[in-house]
Amino acid sequence: MKEFDFIRRYLYRAQTDADVLLGIGDDAAVVRPRAGYDLCFSSDMLLKNRHFFENVAPADLAYKVLAVNISDMAAMGAAPRWALLSAGLPQLQESWLAEFCDSLFALARRFGVTLIGGDTTKGDLAFNVTIVGELPQGRALRRDAAQIGDDVWVSGRLGLAAAALHHHWQTFALPDSVFDLCERVRLRPEPRVALGQALLPFARAAQDISDGLAQDLGHILQASGVDAEIFAEEVPTLPQLRDNLDKTALYGCVLAGGDDYELVFTAPQSCRAAVLEAGRASGTPVTRIGRITEGCGRLNISDAAGRPVVLASLGFDHFE
Amino acid sequence: MKEFDFIRRYLYRAQTDADVLLGIGDDAAVVRPRAGYDLCFSSDMLLKNRHFFENVAPADLAYKVLAVNISDMAAMGAAPRWALLSAGLPQLQESWLAEFCDSLFALARRFGVTLIGGDTTKGDLAFNVTIVGELPQGRALRRDAAQIGDDVWVSGRLGLAAAALHHHWQTFALPDSVFDLCERVRLRPEPRVALGQALLPFARAAQDISDGLAQDLGHILQASGVDAEIFAEEVPTLPQLRDNLDKTALYGCVLAGGDDYELVFTAPQSCRAAVLEAGRASGTPVTRIGRITEGCGRLNISDAAGRPVVLASLGFDHFE
Repeated sequence: MKEFDFIRRYLYRAQTDADVLLGIGDDAAVVRPRAGYDLCFSSDMLLKNRHFFENVAPADLAYKVLAVNISDMAAMGAAPRWALLSAGLPQLQESWLAEFCDSLFALARRFGVTLIGGDTTKGDLAFNVTIVGELPQGRALRRDAAQIGDDVWVSGRLGLAAAALHHHWQTFALPDSVFDLCERVRLRPEPRVALGQALLPFARAAQDISDGLAQDLGHILQASGVDAEIFAEEVPTLPQLRDNLDKTALYGCVLAGGDDYELVFTAPQSCRAAVLEAGRASGTPVTRIGRITEGCGRLNISDAAGRPVVLASLGFDHFE
Repeated sequence: MKEFDFIRRYLYRAQTDADVLLGIGDDAAVVRPRAGYDLCFSSDMLLKNRHFFENVAPADLAYKVLAVNISDMAAMGAAPRWALLSAGLPQLQESWLAEFCDSLFALARRFGVTLIGGDTTKGDLAFNVTIVGELPQGRALRRDAAQIGDDVWVSGRLGLAAAALHHHWQTFALPDSVFDLCERVRLRPEPRVALGQALLPFARAAQDISDGLAQDLGHILQASGVDAEIFAEEVPTLPQLRDNLDKTALYGCVLAGGDDYELVFTAPQSCRAAVLEAGRASGTPVTRIGRITEGCGRLNISDAAGRPVVLASLGFDHFE
C-alpha cells in the first residue's frame, strides 16, 4: 500500500464541518474562523517507549494521541475544532491502521474535532497532533491569572495513571482490580472540555495535569507570581490507592504523578458555588484542595497533621 | 538543563505580532484571526535518516524543518503567520540548540512567521512543524482547480536537490562546483511565498514540488480530472546537470526528484503576461513547461524529438 492509498482509504472521511473549506489532501487545509472567536493552538509529540509502550493497542494509542491534545483545549476553556495528525509508522499494516483510525475518529467525533491534515512517513512509531480550538474573544484560562486568595481546585481524581505506570515498572504491585481502574485512566484519560468551558466565566488560572500536580500547579504559581498552600489529604484519588500504598508512594502518584489529564484551576472564593455547579453541569467531580497565597512561585503542601510534605520529584521531566 | 529552562532560554523570544494574544508557555497559544481572511494549516514531520542525514548541521536542519512548511503556504498562495515546533531531541546540547534556534528564528523572521508553541521531548531526532497562514477569504491555489487549456508552469529550477542526494548516495558523482550548487538547494530550499501570493489573482491550481514534478503535478491532474502534456527539455534545471548527467539520470532528477520545493502551477493562457510579471515582481524565475489537456489524470511527458519519456519512478514514496 502506498502512502497516498493509505491516506485516501483511512483518513479521507466525510466531514460535515461547514467552516472547513478544504480538508485533507491539498498542500494545506483551509478553514474560515468564526467572527467573535479567538483561536487556540497546541501541539504534542508522542514517541515510542517515552510516551507509550511499544505493544500498546492501536485503539488505545490513537485515543491518547488525540486526547492529550484535546485536554490542552480544556485547560484553556476552549472548544476543540480541528486537528492535524503527523505519524511516523514503521510499516503500513492494514488491521493496525484500521483500529488506530477508528478509535481516532470516534474520539474526534465525540469532541466535535475534524481532522483537517497532517503528514505520514515511514519511521519509528512517532506521533504529533496539533489541535486548534475556539474561545470567545479575549477569554482564556491562562497560567498567569491566579490571584492571592483564590481557591485551588482539581477535577476528577489524581494519581491513577501514575499508579498504573509504577505497577508496569514493578515499583509496586497493585491488586488486579485496582490496577484495572488505574490502567483505564492511563490509557484513556477523559479530556475535561465541558468543565473548562463551564469555568470560563469565572475561573482565573487553569492548566491540565500532564506532568504532575506539583509541577503543573507550579507553572501557574510562577507565571502568576504567587504561592499556594495545598492539603495533601484533600487531593482526591482512588480510595483503594490510599489503602494499598504507603504515604511516600501515594503522594508520589497523587502529587507528582502525571498523565491523568485532570485540570487544576483557581477561582475566587466568592465563586465556590459556581465552581461546584460547573462541575455538576459538566458531569465532572471538582474538589477544593487549597488556596493561593502571597509569594513568588512556591508550592507548600501539608499533610493531615499540618506537617510539610516533601516530594522526591516534582513530576515528569521531559529530558530526564 | 531541564526542559523548561531550555524552552525559556531558547524559545521564548520577544515577538511583535499583535495578533498573538498569548505565545509560547501556556497550555496553548491564543491568536486573533483577522476579519476577511481564511486560515491555512499544514504539518510536516521530519525524521532522522529519512528526511535528513544524522550529521546535518543544526542550522541547516532548522532551516529545512521550517522551510518545507513555509513552502506549503506558498503553494496555497497564503502568507505564513504562525508556527508550532515539536522536537524529539536525544539530549539538550547547548551549542547545537543555539545554532538550531538562531537559524530557525532567522528564517521565521524573514517570512514573518511567529513561533507560538510546540513541544519538546527526549527521543530520537524528530521534528514536526505545523504552520498557519492567511489567505483572503475564499481564495486558495488548490490542487483541483486546473482547467483544460491551462498552461503548466514551474518556478525556479528543478532536479538540483535530487542530484545532490544522488551524489551523496554515490549513484553518480558531480564535479565539486556543481555539487555545491545542488547541495545548497537541497539544504536551503527557498519557499516561493512571494510568487504564490502574486499568483493568487489568476493562477488556478498549484502545489509545491516535494516528491518530484511527475508525482506532484500528478496530484493536480487527479484532483482536477484532467491530463497534462509537458516537454522534458523545457523543464528548467541547472545547465551543468544537463552537461554532466546522461538522460536517464537527468530526467530522474528533474522530473522525478523531489526536495527542490519549487512551485508547479497552472494558469489560463490569457494570463501569460501576468504570470511573467508575477515572476518578475517576486524575483522568481517562472517557466512554461506544457499544458493541461482533456483526460482523467495522466501526465504525458515528451522529449525534444516528441517521443514519450518513461520514468523509472514517478517520485518519492513515503513508505518505500
